[in-house]
Amino acid sequence: MNDRATVRRLPQRGAYDAETIHAILDAGFLAHVGFCLEGQPFVIPTLYGRVRDEGGGQDKLCLHGSAASRMLRELSAGVPACVTVTLVDGIVLARSAFHHSMNYRSVVAFGTARKIEDVQGKAEALRVISDHLIAGRWDDVRNPTAKELKATSVLEFTIEEASAKIRTGPPVDDEEDYALPVWAGVVPLHLQAAAPLKDARLNGDIPLPGYVRRFHANGNGHHGTEEQ
Amino acid sequence: MNDRATVRRLPQRGAYDAETIHAILDAGFLAHVGFCLEGQPFVIPTLYGRVRDEGGGQDKLCLHGSAASRMLRELSAGVPACVTVTLVDGIVLARSAFHHSMNYRSVVAFGTARKIEDVQGKAEALRVISDHLIAGRWDDVRNPTAKELKATSVLEFTIEEASAKIRTGPPVDDEEDYALPVWAGVVPLHLQAAAPLKDARLNGDIPLPGYVRRFHANGNGHHGTEEQ
Repeated sequence: MNDRATVRRLPQRGAYDAETIHAILDAGFLAHVGFCLEGQPFVIPTLYGRVRDEGGGQDKLCLHGSAASRMLRELSAGVPACVTVTLVDGIVLARSAFHHSMNYRSVVAFGTARKIEDVQGKAEALRVISDHLIAGRWDDVRNPTAKELKATSVLEFTIEEASAKIRTGPPVDDEEDYALPVWAGVVPLHLQAAAPLKDARLNGDIPLPGYVRRFHANGNGHHGTEEQ
Repeated sequence: MNDRATVRRLPQRGAYDAETIHAILDAGFLAHVGFCLEGQPFVIPTLYGRVRDEGGGQDKLCLHGSAASRMLRELSAGVPACVTVTLVDGIVLARSAFHHSMNYRSVVAFGTARKIEDVQGKAEALRVISDHLIAGRWDDVRNPTAKELKATSVLEFTIEEASAKIRTGPPVDDEEDYALPVWAGVVPLHLQAAAPLKDARLNGDIPLPGYVRRFHANGNGHHGTEEQ
């Protein structure tokens, strides 16, 4: 682990083990991807999927987008990239303004991307992204045509270094502030899935798939604080 | 608007008016801030507050962090930065893998930051961040001491250019795919506030403040799809 991924501020919140990093990457589905273009940073939100380790290899994420996307074009040139995933778990209300905080889990991953050129590899990577977001969906839908695959850029981002940061629990106030007559605690936050809205053109005989029902019943976008 | 902020992909999703951009910045509270350090991008999650326009000026965001934070130190040197705010509104399930999508609102803002040095200006900017997250809180809590203000770096980020992207509504499938026996629709997602958890050391006589109760009753971290 070199300096790039070292958590400098509040180092007690830093965690580096692969299990912690994988758990956060698996609980999220939205990444913010950063790259530099002549000194100008760009930060673009995008979906991702994590490639399950097939033993001993480096961690990889799959990203995709239109072949016309600036982000995909720049990243596929192999420039250094930063992929950050943040899950918000709550607002921490302390007795002093200074000790207010968020409960959250985040991963900052550094690495480089390469474009997946072969059709089979592209389709597999798209399946990784689809399965990551909503497992079971891929097998239900019309798979991409050759033309659609051509219009899609798919990247494999290899994580060279990563760090996690996690804050949990109640506010931590200065000892003398506990006597203040100020309400303190945590407002838990989680991404909640509401009842699925069926498409107006849906044939009424088509039942809601179990993977969509479970997604809603779990009450979260596999993104909450609950155990998966 | 120069090329930096032009939405290239799916330009019909791009929106540039200040009202749209302000509404997204006001509905969110978590930004992903990007900067470059010798060609290496960094993307760091952080809270922010939007400075309400006092007439004719440029849009500004306030950011804060530990004086020891690498992000704050780098940004305060005035390097180009990118501040991205993304609100996830739903998963769009189409009949083909290709047309799957997310409903979301995002702003990508480019600009530079300057460090706020004067104590009064720092305190005001911290109040902007606090009010943005949970209006009413600042007046209830112990305000920062001189020592705390010294330990905190506060930045004013001036937005030089920004663009918004929004996707709403049902899936849009290829005409021939509407006949497929595949469930299609949207799973709405929103950030939900659960019941506040009071701190174990809280004096039992202190009532839950109205601004916390309303935050929970609204069912969202002022981040949902509902009108504010």
